[in-house]
Amino acid sequence: MAISVDTFFLNPDAQGTLQAQIQEMIAEGVLSGRFRVGEKLPSSRKLASHLGISRITVTLAYTELLANDYLTSRGRSGYYVSENAPVPPSYTPPQRSDDAVDWSQAIARTFTGGDTPRKPRDWRNYRYPFIYGQVDASLFDHANWRLCALRALGQKDFAALTNDYFDQDDPLLIEYIARHTLPRRGVTARPEQILITLGAQNALWLVIQLLLNRGRKAAIEDPTYYTLRDQLTHVRCQMDCIPVDADGLPPEQIAEDTDVIFCTPSHQSPTTATMPMARRKQLLERAREIDAVIVEDDYEFEMSFLGAPSPALKSLDTDGRVVYVGSFSKSLFPGLRLGYLVGSESFIRQARALRASVLRHPPGHIQRTVAYFLSLGHYDSQIRRTAKELHNRRLVIEEAIAAHGLSISGVGVYGGSSLWMRAPEGVDTAAAAERLREKSVIIEPGAPFFAPQHRKQNYYRLGYSSIPASRIEPGLALLSEALKPS
Amino acid sequence: MAISVDTFFLNPDAQGTLQAQIQEMIAEGVLSGRFRVGEKLPSSRKLASHLGISRITVTLAYTELLANDYLTSRGRSGYYVSENAPVPPSYTPPQRSDDAVDWSQAIARTFTGGDTPRKPRDWRNYRYPFIYGQVDASLFDHANWRLCALRALGQKDFAALTNDYFDQDDPLLIEYIARHTLPRRGVTARPEQILITLGAQNALWLVIQLLLNRGRKAAIEDPTYYTLRDQLTHVRCQMDCIPVDADGLPPEQIAEDTDVIFCTPSHQSPTTATMPMARRKQLLERAREIDAVIVEDDYEFEMSFLGAPSPALKSLDTDGRVVYVGSFSKSLFPGLRLGYLVGSESFIRQARALRASVLRHPPGHIQRTVAYFLSLGHYDSQIRRTAKELHNRRLVIEEAIAAHGLSISGVGVYGGSSLWMRAPEGVDTAAAAERLREKSVIIEPGAPFFAPQHRKQNYYRLGYSSIPASRIEPGLALLSEALKPS
Repeated sequence: MAISVDTFFLNPDAQGTLQAQIQEMIAEGVLSGRFRVGEKLPSSRKLASHLGISRITVTLAYTELLANDYLTSRGRSGYYVSENAPVPPSYTPPQRSDDAVDWSQAIARTFTGGDTPRKPRDWRNYRYPFIYGQVDASLFDHANWRLCALRALGQKDFAALTNDYFDQDDPLLIEYIARHTLPRRGVTARPEQILITLGAQNALWLVIQLLLNRGRKAAIEDPTYYTLRDQLTHVRCQMDCIPVDADGLPPEQIAEDTDVIFCTPSHQSPTTATMPMARRKQLLERAREIDAVIVEDDYEFEMSFLGAPSPALKSLDTDGRVVYVGSFSKSLFPGLRLGYLVGSESFIRQARALRASVLRHPPGHIQRTVAYFLSLGHYDSQIRRTAKELHNRRLVIEEAIAAHGLSISGVGVYGGSSLWMRAPEGVDTAAAAERLREKSVIIEPGAPFFAPQHRKQNYYRLGYSSIPASRIEPGLALLSEALKPS
Repeated sequence: MAISVDTFFLNPDAQGTLQAQIQEMIAEGVLSGRFRVGEKLPSSRKLASHLGISRITVTLAYTELLANDYLTSRGRSGYYVSENAPVPPSYTPPQRSDDAVDWSQAIARTFTGGDTPRKPRDWRNYRYPFIYGQVDASLFDHANWRLCALRALGQKDFAALTNDYFDQDDPLLIEYIARHTLPRRGVTARPEQILITLGAQNALWLVIQLLLNRGRKAAIEDPTYYTLRDQLTHVRCQMDCIPVDADGLPPEQIAEDTDVIFCTPSHQSPTTATMPMARRKQLLERAREIDAVIVEDDYEFEMSFLGAPSPALKSLDTDGRVVYVGSFSKSLFPGLRLGYLVGSESFIRQARALRASVLRHPPGHIQRTVAYFLSLGHYDSQIRRTAKELHNRRLVIEEAIAAHGLSISGVGVYGGSSLWMRAPEGVDTAAAAERLREKSVIIEPGAPFFAPQHRKQNYYRLGYSSIPASRIEPGLALLSEALKPS
């Protein structure tokens, strides 16, 4: 690659001759790793004209750099970074500024810290990745995804790809969700009641900004998806963390002064409990009594291979009280970042305005690609194939769990892609997870799911969406070894 | 397309026989537009088994619907929605719930309203679209974009496409920005000083959340990009709107107690003024004096066809005081939604944490596609081609402006894709814009750019990035007619 002439500037305050300055610029470019071996320098004519200096100055600088072996010349074709030039391990530009700003003062609110744990980014290199929420390359219909993406990149869809939609969504995707996806959950919604988001997490974030503030109270499940708790902490609302039981969130525990109830009725996260129909009705009744809004996170509903899924809580909602959160990130792949919100029109109007202010709209090309993948039936096939394979792995993992004397804590009637597990009292699963990494095993420690005041150390989550069936048993053998109380 | 059996649910509280319920479900599906003419119903066997009822009940319901002409039968291949079935104009599901929630109470903060105007979404249908910030299909290198997207969809990049990066960005894209893009602005930055955002607007939003709150003060240019003012209004900070002059923001007007200064030195938005070097140094000096952070929005820097761009303000920053905002949305296409922030490491760390909480990360596939488009040199060619064409249009528009006696208010030395115009005193450009739409002309009224207390009605912006050169003169003829004081 040629080095662009536009990256050369003369510093008006610089010391030394022009020739020395040019030599220094180039040497610094090489030493910092910005210029790489074999890259071509601008011609002396071009550089001289760009900098407004005489060509001989540039030529002299180049000749000097040639002598010092920073550059090499290939006859008339010009100057290149020499193979003998020093090569830094990576691009590390010189620090040109000292931080004169006290950022701890300048930053009004911090967002670091919190409960959300960091997962290993190189999980694909592990032999036994009982990781949750990542994609299994062997199950993903890559070929058809590519075809749909290509179609969405075609001339016909140019406007959909490139337009600034301002605050709008792709009408094709919205229509598919309204006509095909939501009816599977028993939910009916008009287009103006649906908003596309940058994944389910972004959907929850939007809801939280709109419905909660310091003076208001949220009720959440305990344990729960930790990022939700972090998001609520950021708005500084009050938070009741209500322990779930085998049927999920107990409605009678929800306090009178609650404004918003967050729940995962299909498949409690992380315990996998499915809320029975009777309790769903009680939950709606309780919300009506105290005039609270319910936020239903219906993640992974497609993975109901153990039994037909019950309709969403939203389908029973005759009050417009339930805000429904759906996602394609889990069922397609998490890097996609595409989800949606369904709710009353007045609510969706505000969510749309907030989304427009924060990020305008999710990229048009991604919306259109998903619309094609859905409407051509690839999504349904993918879901069926994945559910079948997850069912198989579920049988394998349950057998191996029994064989190794491990304990399942939550049992859903639903399916899903993970199990919520309990290690013997006294075992710290965070420490065990650390040790297990050395044996190429990844498990997810359970503590971050619990509210700080109820934190338990001996739970963990076993994901089986990214581990081949044949590795499950050997992985659990290592796990069982590591969890033995010492 | 076949209608999925999963979209059928029996309502446990329903009245009437099972057969009547099934008939009603299907009739409602047809009448609402959810089922379309020619779509295939599930087989009676499948539907009966799904609902857990006897097959004869389903068969009787289907037969009845056949008699009523909702369905048609094609022998052994099954039942289809009949061509004679009533067809609604669009999908309009029955309203199943009344809003029992008082959303004006339930919503803690509203985000609708504000200054950001709505632009016509169907602008491509206008003959004279002097619209700003949209893409010109004839200039975009669609073929190579498609190739890069395809490459990013390949097996080799599967992980980059599908992975959940948690809070990370595509290392390829970050490296390109650090080594090639920023050096063109005279800026050096290490990867940990760069954060990819969902466009420049999202970058500004992140900065505002981190640096401002009710107790703090922002200084902004007046006129300015209206969405910035809306974003600042949402955090309820104090706001000084400082009138710009022909050299942009005057540093001496910035109040002592200012915490954050927002500016567009390369190319003031919307007046197009370029800040001279001497004033840039004064601005940095003023910020140092009052210990304020500067946010530099360096939009459209590539479109500097009138003269070489001066290095970014950030390149002069030896204090780590400047937060730099860049974007690919303008130079590629706005639907892309990709931009970046460059700043001190402590600042970027917090911005990364906030971004992770709000939306995790911009989609991996888009990051990788842009990385290829940049590193294969397509971006540079595209920029050159676009700048050349914009230069040509600029000559045409300036000539036509002179010929029709229109007045340019701001003159940048830089280039860009728009002009800031002044109509005669007393002309309301919003009303004129309204009238001009009927003549297929789009212009952008200037009032929303001004702070409410200084709002002027007789300014407007003329974009020339989406209008072919040949239509500029006839468009301006219509415009000149419409702007005559009545």
